[in-house]
This record gives sequence, structure tokens and C-alpha cells, in this order.
Amino acid sequence: MGAGTKVTVYGHVETVRRKGRIAFILLRTFDGEEQVTVKRGEVSDDLWSLVEELGREYFVRVEGTLVQSSIARLGREIMPERIEVIAPSKPTPIDLYGKVEAEWPTRLRYRYLDIRRPKVKAIFRIRSTLMNAAREFLRGEGFVELSFPIIIATATEGGAELFPVDYFGRKAFLAQSSQLYKQSAVAAFGRVFSIAPSFRAEKSRTRKHLTEFWQIDVEAALVSKRDLMDLQFRLVNHIVERILEENERDLEILGVKDLEPWDGYDVVSYDEALEILRRKGFEIEWGEDFGADEERALVSEFDRPFFIPEFPAAITAFYYMVDRRDPRIAHRIDMMGPGPYGVEWSSGGLREYEPARLRARMRELGLNPESFGWYLDMFEYGFPPHGGFGMGVERLMQTLLRLERIHEAALYPRTPDIVEP
Amino acid sequence: MGAGTKVTVYGHVETVRRKGRIAFILLRTFDGEEQVTVKRGEVSDDLWSLVEELGREYFVRVEGTLVQSSIARLGREIMPERIEVIAPSKPTPIDLYGKVEAEWPTRLRYRYLDIRRPKVKAIFRIRSTLMNAAREFLRGEGFVELSFPIIIATATEGGAELFPVDYFGRKAFLAQSSQLYKQSAVAAFGRVFSIAPSFRAEKSRTRKHLTEFWQIDVEAALVSKRDLMDLQFRLVNHIVERILEENERDLEILGVKDLEPWDGYDVVSYDEALEILRRKGFEIEWGEDFGADEERALVSEFDRPFFIPEFPAAITAFYYMVDRRDPRIAHRIDMMGPGPYGVEWSSGGLREYEPARLRARMRELGLNPESFGWYLDMFEYGFPPHGGFGMGVERLMQTLLRLERIHEAALYPRTPDIVEP
Repeated sequence: MGAGTKVTVYGHVETVRRKGRIAFILLRTFDGEEQVTVKRGEVSDDLWSLVEELGREYFVRVEGTLVQSSIARLGREIMPERIEVIAPSKPTPIDLYGKVEAEWPTRLRYRYLDIRRPKVKAIFRIRSTLMNAAREFLRGEGFVELSFPIIIATATEGGAELFPVDYFGRKAFLAQSSQLYKQSAVAAFGRVFSIAPSFRAEKSRTRKHLTEFWQIDVEAALVSKRDLMDLQFRLVNHIVERILEENERDLEILGVKDLEPWDGYDVVSYDEALEILRRKGFEIEWGEDFGADEERALVSEFDRPFFIPEFPAAITAFYYMVDRRDPRIAHRIDMMGPGPYGVEWSSGGLREYEPARLRARMRELGLNPESFGWYLDMFEYGFPPHGGFGMGVERLMQTLLRLERIHEAALYPRTPDIVEP
Repeated sequence: MGAGTKVTVYGHVETVRRKGRIAFILLRTFDGEEQVTVKRGEVSDDLWSLVEELGREYFVRVEGTLVQSSIARLGREIMPERIEVIAPSKPTPIDLYGKVEAEWPTRLRYRYLDIRRPKVKAIFRIRSTLMNAAREFLRGEGFVELSFPIIIATATEGGAELFPVDYFGRKAFLAQSSQLYKQSAVAAFGRVFSIAPSFRAEKSRTRKHLTEFWQIDVEAALVSKRDLMDLQFRLVNHIVERILEENERDLEILGVKDLEPWDGYDVVSYDEALEILRRKGFEIEWGEDFGADEERALVSEFDRPFFIPEFPAAITAFYYMVDRRDPRIAHRIDMMGPGPYGVEWSSGGLREYEPARLRARMRELGLNPESFGWYLDMFEYGFPPHGGFGMGVERLMQTLLRLERIHEAALYPRTPDIVEP
């Protein structure tokens, strides 16, 4: 908008400041903000008295002239000819304007108001960029976008963490990931992905768990572990580049100043990770998985993303490939976000595709191959070697935007205690 | 790939035809197909005897030279130097190669094999384009992509068609649409969308119902009914254009020859729709909604998309705006896909945003405003006028690709009877 232009602007009233014969209305528009400067005598008496009536969060329509201003904070102001109250507002139960945020539980209770705050909007404009950048990158790499079922019949990955659904009187579950289905699609399409909601009925009340989260689920035929690491690294860097291009102002609002693409990634063997942890005082034996404290200690050691490219087979899900020479090792790869806001971004790796080995592996882990039905059957029909990963959208957001809690990356977060609004 | 080039190709064996000292292997690759021509004497004895062992759906790696051929159906063939069986196959329980498809229930039972068929892959490569084109268009129109919750606490839209979820011992539901949540986001972002799974526990065993489907959910502040119709029309035409650009070969495989952008849309008032139906012999009174038969009769009358831009208020959900002058009418807009494969593509319209009117409307429809909690509360805080729509991805696919049943547009469809695989 140039100066001296006629404009019509819609927005919520943030503040009205009066100084004698002049009033300043700060409007929060959908995209940013505008200042409306009303001068008594230069506007109609009706307009001047309307200004007296305006309250915070009133939704108004302003017609006027946009002019440059060296005094106005925004460098511009609107001199109104007409202001119309489209929808008045009651006083809001939480402060939407102050620098001091309401307590998190209060913000959540009034989330439908909390999301009007510029900081929250900045987070979700960036999330929109992230989702799009991920798809753009994967499509560019020849991946076909598919939609896998959310309601599934069998609790293949261990029933304890699945939400049961009453499916016309039959017990079904919400999918934790599209793991089994995306594998099935690899034999047809070669390279597939989906970005979709996933569900985990875990009673973890931590800063990094959501019961409902979005996952970038990727699976590809004929890939090596190095391919999978490179692909994920380039995916994350592409996302960072797009955010820098499209969300400069949002990053400013959030005070994120040091986001930039990483110059590379590290590969830290499971044994090396153990060493780091022991050096930091953890008592951890070969064969154990990393808990929340271990993870936090590990990521704080790094300032760029890193991969742990293998795990003890005994603590690794059945669908991962076990090393052909060393059966203690499974080809699971975790990608870790670095630094104080670092978390595990993704889990993935190479999958077992030989039916006999898969059956043996299931039995080893105490699972009954018979119960896997179609999933086990499909490997009998010329199944290509493949691998993939599932990357958490909110996890990635937490690290990139330095969010105190992962819940801030979900518009309406779901935790064991919260299912409303 | 040029002729005379060294190539490495992976694929599934579709057929092996032997004619004396020559064998033709037709490979189905992830992207298309290749012919491998093996000449006894020109290849090693080992390679020739390997060909004898190859069976259908064997997954193989072929190294060789690609040459032009005027005889080969594909116009090219690969002269192999090396063939490696990566994964053998048992005989498949359904025919993946014949022109005659297996019966639909059988195809569904073996869906993990059925999706390897070129026709099925063509459908989902087009779906991938559709999803991307929809987002591209909406982002271009200034919409922010958001993710709304799937697990919701209250059965606001009428509990009968919701799937119950056991949420840590508390009863919750799967969202039918993001209706209430996308409305909440409009006050913050102005223009929002999501493409996400939705769930309807409807025991409809028809050719146009899925219990799990994907929906393009769009909501915008400050729109007119004409804006909403234009937006949807341009959205669909953009999708069609992208499919024509990116999926020429897939449309050929599916035999879809007449897909093209429409030159415009029609607007058919509810009263005009009644007239058309009565002319066709339906006994339908003012105030009734259209059933499956009426819908089919209506869409077959049109050869381009059309909108029904208002409905009797009594059969319209509470969140639609009722006309300020004629309270019998609500500003619900249905978008209908035309022709023999036509179905209702979307429902949408203008929403009620004045809290007092919304409360009165709820009571009129026999609903208790108290039970709406935060949803009703949010309208008290300067809520902008707004409207939107929810467009069914599979519905759109059904019409555009002339699919006999909507289930073919879902990789693993969910119906009242089917929840596996």
C-alpha cells in the first residue's frame, strides 16, 4: 500500500489511546497491524464519538487514507473517513496484548482467543510453510503422496499405546503411524509419503509428547542407510530455507534470530552415544534404549543434527532389518535435533523384507506371526528391499522455533488431560 | 533414456514369453514398464537358465543396454547382461495382469497386491496431483494451512454419526469435519484451510460413501456467497488443469479422454432443483433435502459443475447463517459434480457469527446452547463474518476419473464392513 492511497482495512481493536483531540487506534489485522489516527474536528462528530465506544477485540472496518508517517511506530497511519463496528466484544478472559503471557493452562482453556496473538499466529504461519516445504521437497525427489488409513483393525505395534475406537460395535484402533501400510505401498509405487495425523495413547505428561501429532511418513524402495540420512538432512534443510524465505517477519515476532541451514550432519554410533552419556554420569548398559534424560543430555552435546544409525535389535520394533552378520544390531536410524531445544525428530531405517526372516524375528520378540495376516503375507510376492522414516512435525517445530513445550506447535493440542477445546 | 545406453532397471516380472531361442520379459517398474529381450547364445548360459526360473511378480534387477526397437510394443527394449532375482514370488491370489479385473471384494481383500496394478497406480498418482494442486491453489489465494484436532470431546454435530474413542477412559469422538475449529481459526488468520481425514459412522453401503475420507476444509472471513462459489469453481478447475499437465499417461491408462477445465458453472436455486426433480417424476415437497436418488437425477441433468445456493433452514445445520429477511432460508451452498459420475462435491456457505442469533437458532433446532461451551463463547469476542466449505477428495476423484465406486479413490477404503487390510 502506498502513501496517500484510499484503503479499506478490517481488524480487531488492540488499543485505543486518546490524547486530547487525537486518538490512536491500533488494529490487529489478519496479516499484521495498522494504526488509525483520528483527529477531532477533522472527522465527523459521529466518528469521534464512535471511537469513545470502541473496546478491545471489537472487529471493525476502517475506510480512509493511508499516509506515511515518521512518528507512527509502523511508519504509516490511516486517516479514517469511516469506521464501522462489525462485531463488538466482551472483555477477554485472557490478556491478548501484554508482553507477559497468561499461564499455559489458561491459554489452553481459551485457546480460541490465544490463537489471535501475533506470537501464536507466527508459529502457525511457519508451520504452514513447513508442511508445504516438506511436500515440495518430497515430490521433487519423486515421492507419490498417499493417504493411509487412520482406523486400523489390528494393534500390530503393541496395543498398549493405541486408542481404541468403537467401529460399528467392532473394536478397532487409531493408527500410531502408517508403518505397515506405507510399506505395502512401496512395492507398488517405489517412493511414497504422507503427512497425516498419528495417535499415541501414552500417558506422558512431558514437554515433548502429544497424543495427537502430525507425522511426515516416508518410505522408499532400494535405499541405503546413507540415502535415508541424506534425504532427511536435505528435507530438514529445505524446510529451514523455505521458512527463512517466507517467514522473516514471523521469526522476528518469535525472536528466533539464529535459524539457518546446517552445514552438515553427524553420525554417532550407538556405542559412541553410550560413551558420551557415561562421560556425563549416566549409568547405562549396552542394550538399553535412551530415556528422556539421556536424550536431553545427548542432544545438548551437538550443534547440528545427528543420526544414531543402529540400535540393539532387542529394543527395536520387528519391522526393522537385523544386521545379516551381527544379529545383535538392527538397522534403525534415529535423527536427533540438536541443542537446548533438541529432541528426537524421526525414527526410521531399513525394513526386513524377507518373509522367513521376518517371521523368525517376530517369534524372537515374542510376537505371533499368525496374527499379522496380510502384513506378513505381502512379503511373499516379490517384495523389494526398502526403508523409510517417520518425522514428527511438532518435534521439528519445537527445535527450529525453540518452543518451551511441543504443545505450542499444535493449534489445539491433545494430551492425556486435554481433549477440549 | 536414450538408445544404446547402459541401464540398470528394477521391476516386477509381469510375463515371460519364450519363442525358441528368444525370451521376452515384460517388467513392471515403479513408474511404467520395460521389455527385456533375452537371446540364447548372446547371453551366458546362466542367464538363459535364470530366465526359465522367473515367475510372475518376481522382483528383479536388470543390467543391460537400452536399444530402440521398431518391433517392441514400447518402442524400446533392454538387452540384458545380468539379471538378479532380488525377491521371488508365490503365485498371486488375484490376477494382476488380465484385462478382466477380479471382483471388488476380492480386490479389497488383497488390496496390498491390487495396488500394484497400473490402473490403480494411475488413480493414486492423480490423487497425489489433486492434493498438491488444491494446496497450491489455496496458498496462492492467501490461505494458511492448519491442522485441526481429530479427537474431539463433544458430539456437536449430532452424535449418531460419530465414532466413539476411548480417550484414557473418557469418551471422545473422531471429528466429522473441522467445522467448529476452522471457524475458530478464521478470527485469527482470516483465511485457513486443512486437507485431513474425516470420519462418518454412517452405515451407508453405497457407491459414494466412505467412513474415513479426506476433506479439503476451507474457511474465510469476509466472503460473499459468490466469492465462495467462485473460489470453489476455480479450485476445481485448477486441479483439473494440473492433472492434465502432470498425469497425461495416467489418464490414458484409465481411459479418461474428456477431462478438461469447465467453461463456467451454473447456479440452480433450491426451487429450480425441486422443479427439475418433479419434472423427472419425483414427489418432493418444499423443505425436504435431496436423497441419493434425487441427487443422481439432478446431477445427470448437467454437464458442468453447479451450485445450489440456499436450502430450507429447517434441514440445515445450526452453524449456517439464516437469511435475515426470510428465516425459512439458510445460506448453505452445495457444489455438485455433473454427469453420470456426478455427486455432491462439497457443502458450505455463510456461517452465523452473531452469538444471540446463534443461540436462538440452536434452540429452534432443538439443541441446547449450554452444551456448546467454548464454541458459542468465542463469538462474544468480535467475531468476523465468515464462510467456507468442506470438499470431499474422494468425491471429486469419483467424478473426475469416472470411478464406479468412491472406494476406488481410497488406497485402503473403510466402509461399515471393511476395516482391514
